[in-house]
Amino acid sequence: MEGFSKTDAVEIEAIKIDGLNMQRVKEKVVVEQALTVYLNDEEFVTVVCSPGQEKELVTGLLCSEGIINKPEQLTKLSIDNKEGLAWAETSVKNNLGEAMYLKRYLTSCCGKGRSSFYYANDARLVQKIESPMQVTSREVIHYMKLLDEKSELFHQTGGVHGAVLASAGHLEYFAFDIGRHNVLDKLYGYAFTKKMDLSQKVIAFSGRMSSEIVIKAGKMGCPILMGVSAPSALALTLANELGITVIGFARQNSMNIYTHPERILIQS
Amino acid sequence: MEGFSKTDAVEIEAIKIDGLNMQRVKEKVVVEQALTVYLNDEEFVTVVCSPGQEKELVTGLLCSEGIINKPEQLTKLSIDNKEGLAWAETSVKNNLGEAMYLKRYLTSCCGKGRSSFYYANDARLVQKIESPMQVTSREVIHYMKLLDEKSELFHQTGGVHGAVLASAGHLEYFAFDIGRHNVLDKLYGYAFTKKMDLSQKVIAFSGRMSSEIVIKAGKMGCPILMGVSAPSALALTLANELGITVIGFARQNSMNIYTHPERILIQS
Repeated sequence: MEGFSKTDAVEIEAIKIDGLNMQRVKEKVVVEQALTVYLNDEEFVTVVCSPGQEKELVTGLLCSEGIINKPEQLTKLSIDNKEGLAWAETSVKNNLGEAMYLKRYLTSCCGKGRSSFYYANDARLVQKIESPMQVTSREVIHYMKLLDEKSELFHQTGGVHGAVLASAGHLEYFAFDIGRHNVLDKLYGYAFTKKMDLSQKVIAFSGRMSSEIVIKAGKMGCPILMGVSAPSALALTLANELGITVIGFARQNSMNIYTHPERILIQS
Repeated sequence: MEGFSKTDAVEIEAIKIDGLNMQRVKEKVVVEQALTVYLNDEEFVTVVCSPGQEKELVTGLLCSEGIINKPEQLTKLSIDNKEGLAWAETSVKNNLGEAMYLKRYLTSCCGKGRSSFYYANDARLVQKIESPMQVTSREVIHYMKLLDEKSELFHQTGGVHGAVLASAGHLEYFAFDIGRHNVLDKLYGYAFTKKMDLSQKVIAFSGRMSSEIVIKAGKMGCPILMGVSAPSALALTLANELGITVIGFARQNSMNIYTHPERILIQS
């Protein structure tokens, strides 16, 4: 358990107590690592994440923050798994994206702007989605099943979140991570590198749908976000504004449609 | 649903689909807000959090990062809930704490130091806990029940995490938040302001126990961390090093003890 490992989960010993019974058991627990991103030779950010899909994660983070907006702009990306380091080099130096990273978006002084955003980079990078895409309620259930089938590690360890990018009934990409945001960044990095058009795709997600999850779906241009869990109020305000359909508590045959229900057709 | 609200949850309309049935329902969703902390007139950080306990949250964040280490050093703390702003002033200017905030702790170059830490502030601020405290397995279950009784909002909305600080069978403080870290920071801020000695107290937590949760318990000096969910591998490595007892999957009459089991006595 020392240092960083490429395995997703490791077996450890625990003492299991059940009433008066006590026994030594072996349990699987998820691996967690730190990945520090150096951007053009300067320390940019340290994320705590699950091992695997590091290139997608770093790429997703950089495009999510507006540091790059075309795959070609990322001229170098190398990962040192052992030390938990990533080196990214970009052909353009986007001072605005870096300067605005994690900086508050304050609109109160000028009395205009979209006040639902809290980070400056989000407010400048997200655009309203106009996709006419529609899916049936049956497809929603199918996509949630695809997610469930891929989420073995979650079932084994209870410790990671997962998401799938899917369309036309098929899974396009699956990402998992101990961090909710990282899951979306990994999907984003993959789609960005592949220059995928996400206007006809859905994201099915295992975690709570807070505002930053909706914002990431918005940046990706993905019109439908569905999940096992609950959304937050701010997530729904943003989803309304951004034209994103949010579906929560999608389990077995039921689901709650919170925003833009025009994209969902009922089918048994 | 516009702007910031002091209420913890708001009622919204959703369309509930169950097989072929469709109905309009009212659902409670948690409120999420941004809180930007200005430290001595400079923007320090923006956290996304649940409304309420903002002073505890900001105080906890500042002591968790080593900006302050005595309550007296926090000379001013005011909150503007409407705009989501906090102004903190400190009597001492701790440049080290600020400079090291979220900076990676890299030990590979000199080949020594505790390599399990990933943030520099954590490595410099956490100390090993030597508390001889012991609790019975029955008490563990009792503390988890105290948490459960306080976690009404979670049950209503499925959207927040909660934690209690407890000792001698009694609840001392309860905090909840949409962000896992914030929950611990709220507990920390409360205990710090009250100058509480946590060496004989436990934390019962609803969320996954990742390394940063263990690190926060370590900074607080709390020897026992118990939770409903799973720990990560790195969390357990750190708990071993820091002398913290970690108990996971504590539900009904059963639990897994992962580290420092000498603090737990079996009792029906």
